[in-house]
Amino acid sequence: MARPPAAGQPEPVFSWPVRIYYEDTDAGGVVYHANYIRFMERARTEFLRSLGIELGELARDHGVVFAVRALSIDYRKPARLDDWLEVTVAFECVRAASILFRQSIRRGGEEVCEGRVRVASLSVVHFRPVAIPDFMLERLATMGLNPPAS
Amino acid sequence: MARPPAAGQPEPVFSWPVRIYYEDTDAGGVVYHANYIRFMERARTEFLRSLGIELGELARDHGVVFAVRALSIDYRKPARLDDWLEVTVAFECVRAASILFRQSIRRGGEEVCEGRVRVASLSVVHFRPVAIPDFMLERLATMGLNPPAS
Amino acid sequence: MARPPAAGQPEPVFSWPVRIYYEDTDAGGVVYHANYIRFMERARTEFLRSLGIELGELARDHGVVFAVRALSIDYRKPARLDDWLEVTVAFECVRAASILFRQSIRRGGEEVCEGRVRVASLSVVHFRPVAIPDFMLERLATMGLNPPAS
Amino acid sequence: MARPPAAGQPEPVFSWPVRIYYEDTDAGGVVYHANYIRFMERARTEFLRSLGIELGELARDHGVVFAVRALSIDYRKPARLDDWLEVTVAFECVRAASILFRQSIRRGGEEVCEGRVRVASLSVVHFRPVAIPDFMLERLATMGLNPPAS
Repeated sequence: MARPPAAGQPEPVFSWPVRIYYEDTDAGGVVYHANYIRFMERARTEFLRSLGIELGELARDHGVVFAVRALSIDYRKPARLDDWLEVTVAFECVRAASILFRQSIRRGGEEVCEGRVRVASLSVVHFRPVAIPDFMLERLATMGLNPPAS
Repeated sequence: MARPPAAGQPEPVFSWPVRIYYEDTDAGGVVYHANYIRFMERARTEFLRSLGIELGELARDHGVVFAVRALSIDYRKPARLDDWLEVTVAFECVRAASILFRQSIRRGGEEVCEGRVRVASLSVVHFRPVAIPDFMLERLATMGLNPPAS
Repeated sequence: MARPPAAGQPEPVFSWPVRIYYEDTDAGGVVYHANYIRFMERARTEFLRSLGIELGELARDHGVVFAVRALSIDYRKPARLDDWLEVTVAFECVRAASILFRQSIRRGGEEVCEGRVRVASLSVVHFRPVAIPDFMLERLATMGLNPPAS
Repeated sequence: MARPPAAGQPEPVFSWPVRIYYEDTDAGGVVYHANYIRFMERARTEFLRSLGIELGELARDHGVVFAVRALSIDYRKPARLDDWLEVTVAFECVRAASILFRQSIRRGGEEVCEGRVRVASLSVVHFRPVAIPDFMLERLATMGLNPPAS
């Protein structure tokens, strides 16, 4: 990500590569549009793992799941079989019980698609909003991401 | 869809049922978020089929594919294994080379998610915008959907 | 299924239709090979539903999940976008804690693929084999499917 | 793969790691059974890439696609969210127009599943068998894999 982000665009804190296989493509010869949303989740998951946060552990030990509450995506260029993509993770804001991510998928210098994903912290049992666990907020803070003072 | 649409909300012209199988769910016990986007595409495809328009035929005989250019989705309630959902199709606008759909997924009286999907008419060969074929616009017009006079 | 089964081939007891969408295809222009295995599961699930057995209920109320332990599949002809397929369900044998299914996917008179799937009854908690619940064996028996006397 | 293969088992020539994300799992809390078949394809694709063979190029420049004609798989242990698996690639035989692979998926010392996959070389246009391109046979020969003399 040598390119500086546009004004008002948060800077990526993480990037994850994705290779395109036949399973990802459709009969149009390009990546099926819903699959980019999987790639974005892989990058968010690996970003958290890089901070020592595993989603399975979070569910088992803390009773918390992260669920997507809203997303929007703009498709610019199709990706194709054998492509090697970079999926970036940036933050628009961190709240007590949710995070708004900004994500981009690029192939070399070209933007394939970009989107925003709002993820909420929910209790495993009732799927109701719960505060993001403190240890997780602390690790996000090491990335310069602070929830608003309450 | 007995419920009247909210002010400013276009009325659905079509509805398609989807059953939830294990393949659609994830380890959170609910439908994986990217899969609702597949269900929305199934409903759009069946809406077109109900007008006598088949996507494979459109590609082979007219050299046209419909590609998703942008989408946004709000998730309200999780769907689960064995659920029987209704996916609706409504139009916000029809342009010369694109259509903006409004779609909702409901389980009984409850909204599971809703979204907007902008689909562009592209040439099969170059993936560049081309006018929606006339026969297709004529059939959409029978549904009361008219592109703006140029 | 007017065609009589080959010698030694069990006769189908159920058939379920599947429509092919873009999501099911790959850049080869045909259905992605792993997706036929999903279609087979849809047909098995709907067969059980036709007997009043819902998989979600089975897990919640009886603590039982059916897990695939082995499968083999032969691919004969590729299926394509917009195809309308029939997926059949037949039985090779029913045991105390497992069922061996025989399944075929056809398009009109033509066989697309056929396979065998061994499904085991497992406890939800430990994923260990447990007897198929009695009410389920009774309903399978109404189809002429009897487990061996023990 | 420190463990020696069982008698009659071909030795793996390649191994590829796969991380498990939510997209790969189902409501049973484990990896959905059809998804292991995708992982096996990723490993075969990366094995060929390691020999300088890209599937997209093969289709475009040589008019050849590799299609799965048959597969069988035995499931031993379920994989779960966050698991890190190794997918191996071995050969049972290479023929003029097909290859029989043997593949295993392991987590640490434990076998998750193993299977055999027969892949045929087909012409892109007619989906009819064609000889595996010579340059590809030569590169497979560098791995000690020789088609039978004709």
